[in-house]
Amino acid sequence: MLTNPLVTPIKIIASGIALPKNKIDSQELDVRLNKPSGYVKKYSGIDYRFHANNEDSQAQLAADSLHHALEAKQIPAQSIDMLISASAISVQALPCTAAHILAQSRLKQGIACFDINASCVSFITALQVAAGFLSTSQYQRIAIVSADLASRGIDWHDNESALIFGDGAACVIVEKGDGTSGIITYHHETHTEGIELCEIRAGGTRRNPRAGMTDTDFLFHMQGKKLFRMASSLVERFMQRVLTDAHLPINHIGTVIPHQASHLSLEHMRQRLGVKPEQLIDIYRFRGNQVAASIPSALHEAIESGRFYEQKNVMLIGTAAGLAFCAMVLIP
Amino acid sequence: MLTNPLVTPIKIIASGIALPKNKIDSQELDVRLNKPSGYVKKYSGIDYRFHANNEDSQAQLAADSLHHALEAKQIPAQSIDMLISASAISVQALPCTAAHILAQSRLKQGIACFDINASCVSFITALQVAAGFLSTSQYQRIAIVSADLASRGIDWHDNESALIFGDGAACVIVEKGDGTSGIITYHHETHTEGIELCEIRAGGTRRNPRAGMTDTDFLFHMQGKKLFRMASSLVERFMQRVLTDAHLPINHIGTVIPHQASHLSLEHMRQRLGVKPEQLIDIYRFRGNQVAASIPSALHEAIESGRFYEQKNVMLIGTAAGLAFCAMVLIP
Repeated sequence: MLTNPLVTPIKIIASGIALPKNKIDSQELDVRLNKPSGYVKKYSGIDYRFHANNEDSQAQLAADSLHHALEAKQIPAQSIDMLISASAISVQALPCTAAHILAQSRLKQGIACFDINASCVSFITALQVAAGFLSTSQYQRIAIVSADLASRGIDWHDNESALIFGDGAACVIVEKGDGTSGIITYHHETHTEGIELCEIRAGGTRRNPRAGMTDTDFLFHMQGKKLFRMASSLVERFMQRVLTDAHLPINHIGTVIPHQASHLSLEHMRQRLGVKPEQLIDIYRFRGNQVAASIPSALHEAIESGRFYEQKNVMLIGTAAGLAFCAMVLIP
Repeated sequence: MLTNPLVTPIKIIASGIALPKNKIDSQELDVRLNKPSGYVKKYSGIDYRFHANNEDSQAQLAADSLHHALEAKQIPAQSIDMLISASAISVQALPCTAAHILAQSRLKQGIACFDINASCVSFITALQVAAGFLSTSQYQRIAIVSADLASRGIDWHDNESALIFGDGAACVIVEKGDGTSGIITYHHETHTEGIELCEIRAGGTRRNPRAGMTDTDFLFHMQGKKLFRMASSLVERFMQRVLTDAHLPINHIGTVIPHQASHLSLEHMRQRLGVKPEQLIDIYRFRGNQVAASIPSALHEAIESGRFYEQKNVMLIGTAAGLAFCAMVLIP
């Protein structure tokens, strides 16, 4: 194959995931939430998801997924020269989450590390950012890790959001490659009229002991119906802009790797956006919405099940708090 | 001038800053902290700094600095196609800070926005990331904003850290330029044996109502002596690696724009790293340590005082929680 001058070079050379030990069946949530048997499965579309204990560490889970990726392809930990955390929620306010992951990892001390945060689509942005660093030749092998413990912010009094979240982490290792693989297009849009539809208000300067806060400020708040309506009204034209820019019709995208936002959002992809079931990576039933870890976890699933490198073109796509839309078309 | 193939193209076309209304003289802190007159000035090296009220908004201060940059060069707000927040502390846990700044700004709805977080050196990393996006030609004009309200996390019982922090925001607008200006080298190192020397433990998954927290977890904790000792022992060799990579001796760097960490750190630059006073941008006396907003605020000062575009080479350099070191040498 020839080097493609229209592509920003990047090659995914390994991937890995990590899950907390506690597997939470939807039946277990029926009991916990005082619902009739089958309720949670029916309304969430989930068989089971994983929730960390309150003592479990987000940084450790992230490092586990990183080590999984390294071991899968026998990549020496010492060969990684940059670590990007692409998680939606931080370990703590300061320092950045990537430093905490580095501290829990077997990676070399002294490497570059920082966070990218674009809420649930952080991973897509981080891939584009990594390609920029690889193009300078100062960095050769970058680890991107997304880890989120949504369970720590679940509002158990809110049926809608309490049902759908699962914890997890996923990692990919990327290099520049030989120029035959890379990014065809990257699109990212934020429509802030939806900024309050999906949020956790504490955690920064807005709500804290000095500015004022309550315990519910630490919980995930979602106005599900409004969010779904706004996202649905914008996503079709967004998808069209992405495909137009990539000069590809949807049936030329071998695999679509979406954020696993909800079973409704995945159903919308199949029914309204013309994505055939065999094109779509859907791990939602066994993971739930893993926030920023969803997209790289689904990407790992695509790789493991022979639906990534085997394709000419792959799309990553997701909606995020903000309200944001992000998509990338790449040649694997 | 010829295009330089060894340089990653980027051109800073405008800059701006914003400060909260409350100017806090060191004498005022002498009284508040029950110290003899002159104590705070002597130990902090600061005449005055600015502290926001508890109701003030970080996102609004960020947007003010953005509008300042746009107005200074009469750049239409509608022409910005990406917004990067490069702050150390977030507005809230979800969604990302850039979305909150976009919501407070006159920028076009629907543009790309996300956060870069590398603690106090976030701005340097964001400049390198912006250069990567500009190289793809999908983005033409990017706003980078750093805004921090350190006052919201000051531990007034800790003399050492209570004295040094000031709030503020700063913004630059960047384009690809004609290839004569750009980044010669970018270095970033994180040494996590210093991860606990400088931190705010709340704000994420580590300390919250579910995992357990106290009010002091929301305050800035610094082990100043250990931090200074560790940073001093590593910064000389770091600086040497940066200069070696840039193929430039320190006296060929026209202006050095450092993080305004403390008067000791700036003194160390002058005395141990061979940076002449006339090379060094020092706004510490009138701002204090503005966390991630320090470097772009000092950069704005360099531009305004004719010490940026007038130079052949400029260095941005800083230490950050982590413990991290980051530096960039660029042709303005």
